[in-house]
Amino acid sequence: MRYLFLAMAMVSIGGAAYAQEILGFDTAGSKAQYSLEADFDAKLDKQEMDAWLKKFSARPHHVGSTAGKENAILIADLLRSWGYEVEIAEYEILLPTPITRELELVSPTKFTASLEEDSLPEDPSTSVRDELLPPYNAFSIDGDVEGELVFVNYGRPEDYEVLERHGIDVAGKIAIAKYGMSWRGIKPKLAGEKGAIGTIIYSDPADEGYGAGDVYPKGPFKHPSAVQRGSVMDMPTYPGDVLTPGIGATKRARRLGIKDAETITKIPVLPISERDALPLLAAMGGAVVPPEWRGGFPVTYHFGPGPARVHLKVEFNWQKVTAYDVIATLKGSEYPDEWVIRGNHHDGWNHGAADPLSGLVALLAEARSVAELAKAGRPPRRTIVYAAWDAEEPGLIGSTEWAEHHARDLKEHAVAYLNTDGSSRGFIGIGGSHVLERFFNQIMEDVQDPRMDISLKERRRALLKLNAKTEREKDDARNRSDLRIYPMGSGSDYTPFLQHLGIASANMGFGGEGAGGSYHTLYDTYEHYSTWRDPGLVYGEALAQVAGRATLRLANAPRLPFEFKGLADNISLYITELEELADKRRNDIELRNNLLDDGTYAAALDPTKTLGPPKREEPVPYFNFAPLKNAIDRLQRAADAYHEAAASGTSPSREVNKLLYSSERLLTREAGLSGRSWYKHHIYAPGFYTGYGVKTIPGVREAIEQSEYDAVQEQVEIASQVIDRMSQRIESIVAIEAN
Amino acid sequence: MRYLFLAMAMVSIGGAAYAQEILGFDTAGSKAQYSLEADFDAKLDKQEMDAWLKKFSARPHHVGSTAGKENAILIADLLRSWGYEVEIAEYEILLPTPITRELELVSPTKFTASLEEDSLPEDPSTSVRDELLPPYNAFSIDGDVEGELVFVNYGRPEDYEVLERHGIDVAGKIAIAKYGMSWRGIKPKLAGEKGAIGTIIYSDPADEGYGAGDVYPKGPFKHPSAVQRGSVMDMPTYPGDVLTPGIGATKRARRLGIKDAETITKIPVLPISERDALPLLAAMGGAVVPPEWRGGFPVTYHFGPGPARVHLKVEFNWQKVTAYDVIATLKGSEYPDEWVIRGNHHDGWNHGAADPLSGLVALLAEARSVAELAKAGRPPRRTIVYAAWDAEEPGLIGSTEWAEHHARDLKEHAVAYLNTDGSSRGFIGIGGSHVLERFFNQIMEDVQDPRMDISLKERRRALLKLNAKTEREKDDARNRSDLRIYPMGSGSDYTPFLQHLGIASANMGFGGEGAGGSYHTLYDTYEHYSTWRDPGLVYGEALAQVAGRATLRLANAPRLPFEFKGLADNISLYITELEELADKRRNDIELRNNLLDDGTYAAALDPTKTLGPPKREEPVPYFNFAPLKNAIDRLQRAADAYHEAAASGTSPSREVNKLLYSSERLLTREAGLSGRSWYKHHIYAPGFYTGYGVKTIPGVREAIEQSEYDAVQEQVEIASQVIDRMSQRIESIVAIEAN
Repeated sequence: MRYLFLAMAMVSIGGAAYAQEILGFDTAGSKAQYSLEADFDAKLDKQEMDAWLKKFSARPHHVGSTAGKENAILIADLLRSWGYEVEIAEYEILLPTPITRELELVSPTKFTASLEEDSLPEDPSTSVRDELLPPYNAFSIDGDVEGELVFVNYGRPEDYEVLERHGIDVAGKIAIAKYGMSWRGIKPKLAGEKGAIGTIIYSDPADEGYGAGDVYPKGPFKHPSAVQRGSVMDMPTYPGDVLTPGIGATKRARRLGIKDAETITKIPVLPISERDALPLLAAMGGAVVPPEWRGGFPVTYHFGPGPARVHLKVEFNWQKVTAYDVIATLKGSEYPDEWVIRGNHHDGWNHGAADPLSGLVALLAEARSVAELAKAGRPPRRTIVYAAWDAEEPGLIGSTEWAEHHARDLKEHAVAYLNTDGSSRGFIGIGGSHVLERFFNQIMEDVQDPRMDISLKERRRALLKLNAKTEREKDDARNRSDLRIYPMGSGSDYTPFLQHLGIASANMGFGGEGAGGSYHTLYDTYEHYSTWRDPGLVYGEALAQVAGRATLRLANAPRLPFEFKGLADNISLYITELEELADKRRNDIELRNNLLDDGTYAAALDPTKTLGPPKREEPVPYFNFAPLKNAIDRLQRAADAYHEAAASGTSPSREVNKLLYSSERLLTREAGLSGRSWYKHHIYAPGFYTGYGVKTIPGVREAIEQSEYDAVQEQVEIASQVIDRMSQRIESIVAIEAN
Repeated sequence: MRYLFLAMAMVSIGGAAYAQEILGFDTAGSKAQYSLEADFDAKLDKQEMDAWLKKFSARPHHVGSTAGKENAILIADLLRSWGYEVEIAEYEILLPTPITRELELVSPTKFTASLEEDSLPEDPSTSVRDELLPPYNAFSIDGDVEGELVFVNYGRPEDYEVLERHGIDVAGKIAIAKYGMSWRGIKPKLAGEKGAIGTIIYSDPADEGYGAGDVYPKGPFKHPSAVQRGSVMDMPTYPGDVLTPGIGATKRARRLGIKDAETITKIPVLPISERDALPLLAAMGGAVVPPEWRGGFPVTYHFGPGPARVHLKVEFNWQKVTAYDVIATLKGSEYPDEWVIRGNHHDGWNHGAADPLSGLVALLAEARSVAELAKAGRPPRRTIVYAAWDAEEPGLIGSTEWAEHHARDLKEHAVAYLNTDGSSRGFIGIGGSHVLERFFNQIMEDVQDPRMDISLKERRRALLKLNAKTEREKDDARNRSDLRIYPMGSGSDYTPFLQHLGIASANMGFGGEGAGGSYHTLYDTYEHYSTWRDPGLVYGEALAQVAGRATLRLANAPRLPFEFKGLADNISLYITELEELADKRRNDIELRNNLLDDGTYAAALDPTKTLGPPKREEPVPYFNFAPLKNAIDRLQRAADAYHEAAASGTSPSREVNKLLYSSERLLTREAGLSGRSWYKHHIYAPGFYTGYGVKTIPGVREAIEQSEYDAVQEQVEIASQVIDRMSQRIESIVAIEAN
């Protein structure tokens, strides 16, 4: 079989509008696949998706709720009715829900936070409040604390550097942080490390409320009473059930005691609305914050500490609830033991129209279409597993427990994991394993933007061209044949598959338009979604076209569409970034230390103000990056050789396909990352102090960023070995194919 | 006589702490001058300055007011009492003052703007309201208009480009603009050019109010009722009395009719407070503005037009008033016909403590000390003229009329003009003719920061080192022996001297600390100044030390301290900037046109939003900058030759000194700048569309910026000729000194 990696010529095949040789297929196979995809598209039904969206979002349906269980059963019934073999996998997971939530300003003035979101006559869903979870942060520890407030901006490491320069210590105080700029769980984690006794997180109107645009229901942005719920479990340490790290939370699983669960916060946390935050910030004193810390309230923002003093009390019901993962299987006609897994969670914090249902209804539409094709005699060659996860919101729990539970089988059989979650409209965004970069570029070429006469790829490239700032971004946007897919940190259910098990994964969604402030609030309703996000689900249908193609191509391709040139190019970029990071950090610290030594700070700072000089930092040594550069050289050569071999090769053996799909496992190490062994992938990880945000080559990168310079060289060696193992694998495949 | 340009070695002379050979003096002369300056410093008296500040700011004292006249007489009396020959020069100038100021929101809701500033019990001065001028913009035309509001951000050219991309036209509408980012007069000028029928200017709380810091009286920032007054006359066309451009507004001067005065606005303008602006902005609709346009109100900002509709009515008393310039002369003992002029205005918009009195009291302290030294037998060698200008606020009128009135004498006799105006605390800032760059660097080396054991120059260099962003800024801050003085646009009384007459000028002040929002409001009081700006006038005294040294050195130096290497280096930088400007503009426009042609904008923009693509712009041709480069090469060689000649030369003849001080005249041309012949300087001018902001080599720069590409080459020739004339002058001096 012959196929082209870079062919983008238009070939007229059977009426399909956008035709090329599809990665992993020969010409005839491509033609058949295009025809299949045209039929797949024809069976997608936006009206039906919209009806599902309305139905599943009718009531709050978090894990443990009646509606959550009913939705799981409904989803299972639907899938079963279409011909899937369906199982509802049950896990017993710890889910704290609030018993007490109290927040009062006790001095200098009195104010009691309402901690409630308003029902709006314009949106009937907001009055449907059966089993409604009130605003809270899941996996906050219980606490009853009183102390002065300190404003910590977004609560990131760099924010504490500013506080330190102003001589402000949060020890013994209660930190009040804005939502945004870092994952919420990082805020109490860092505040706790700095000695704070509690954390309040609020949504600043400048970021998501009236400062950003008209607020709901007049516009899509955050209603003044809206509160972003969300988990604050320490997911960068491990996600999933806090009591069963590394193993499935089955009824009989061995569990930690709650006191030993290291991913529960060390200090109590409570999220509050703009309306509840204003009186607190207005009552604060101390020095005025720097311009970049200011928000949108009509008050002057001060650091504190105090004089505002608050009493914060949170108590939770530390109950176990059952998570219901719906697992629907359609056996492959030729390779039933090779699994393509396609998932989206079904639990929402409340009504969850955008998050997660906008993605889930795409998955259901795909599943129905695939099942109908199968019934009509065109079954997938490989097994397709559709998964609707429960308990994603409190910490990727449903997916993590299932992945941990079935780890051995998954490592053996899983070809890839394809994820979606809340989606909006605008531009396709795809993240994932870079062995799939070329694969997804073809799909972006083959799917049209639903409102414009151009492909998703052309539209995305236009955005990149318009927004490119650096020379590298400009060059990528203009000249790189494939658009880069983004490396994934965390934030949705791909994490256990990619980062714990080393299964090539991807995440797909639309965004960039249809922004808003409903995320994790009472206002993430059908009414909000269908008015402001993706009216008519036109982009929802496009998402089904993308994810459906990805599923079907992976299921049907005679040669699994893994490709290594894109991988090598991206890893090479990460290595360059590491070198630049080290150089920049070295120069910055040297410059700063020089300015400290020569008295520049002392001379330039205003002696009447609190801002002092930064602290001296240890100089950054030079590191030996040669092992990584040698490793990437080898990987590039191996990738080129495979490209040649695959282009001129015959249909690969099953052994080769297995070697291909299991190659991502080689980027993991059983020992995991330093200090967080659950995370085993050595190219992609969520940042230990950014949360969702990715750190590529995390062992090396975080050692540099966290000034652990002694650890850098060892991490360089480890990362190089990981890359070498991948090269070796590719070389073996090339050797096999040469025979 | 031998002197060193770059000597910074410490020489112990007569107890003066910071000693070097002073530019223009030999060793013995430097010693004497240092001794004189030590005595000069000893006579400065902060308490007395503070008492003057309090006295002169006790009542509103704008031009035409009783207190304004009384202050002029008091100042004249003081100067006379110290031994000056004092004249009060009177000019009859047009000064519109308000009769009617009305602003109402007429739909969709009703609101009548108060247009009044609150008296505050914490600041008794704010209750002293005799003859108080209410908030208004001087030289707004009369008008009675009603129309929908359009929010134009800061009302700059680039803001109208954004409006155009959103399809919004201000024609027939009333523009509401934020104060800041451009000189206020530009806002109605541009709005009028775009067809608006009125302009409202308000102070956004994000810029100067609670968003910036605690508001008065709790802090220094803008009280919600505060309104920035100010002139909106088209000063970039010509400043001074609108009826007598180019000539002194003496009683009998020939005057234009008011209708022919082209510097009066074409549409009515009114400034309003934050408190009056909020209801207007809250009532606006239309698309939401981009993030960078948002301000600090707790509302979503919209472009309009409407539905907010306002009625704006302003009527003025177009009266003539008398401006009283106090001119005090101390005859030079050796060269009475060489004049060093030192000025600061005395009129304020209201109480005017910061603006202008903080600078004026420094001038008075200097004048007293200089007079006492003279009385004690150490008179200045050249004549010193102290000027306290009236009517600066409405448009640099007092200084301009005097300069125009005495133009011939000034061109003949003026060695230099040294200006101060409102000053605060922190870092010395010096702008001026670059022939004085080296001169002022020595002064910055010789004056100590009043709170730190370092020179003003060291403190300023520390700031530049800390804030440097570009490589050029970093290199300047770290390595350039002299700190650059900034090129001057407009904004104070140096303009007629420098830009109309070509007299080497400078402006001095402290800033960077003691920020606030009292500028041109009722709250620019003694209480505000002495609490928040420069308590105890410690920086006020340092300002007197700087300006006093500048005056005395220029008055006493055997060789006038003009130096051309700094001039050449700065002009060389401006030429490089012009080339970079043309290249950047060419590249930007080419890139933008390409993105328009290849459909990128069409593909990337959200079709549901109002933002459209930018308009195509004419490609920027390549220009021949060789004449400028040849001219700067010659100037650099001439400057080097003079440096050598002066370093090895004897005491110069009077002819040489005159050739030196009149050299700045050669940078002017009688024809003036294109379209604004009053501005004759071809290296420095205020921007035609920026107002105060300087444009260096303005003929060339503005032709490029305003896409008048056909005019560029002619302007390059003109600027080159101007530079060549300066080179020729320097070459003649060198030739004379060689004989």
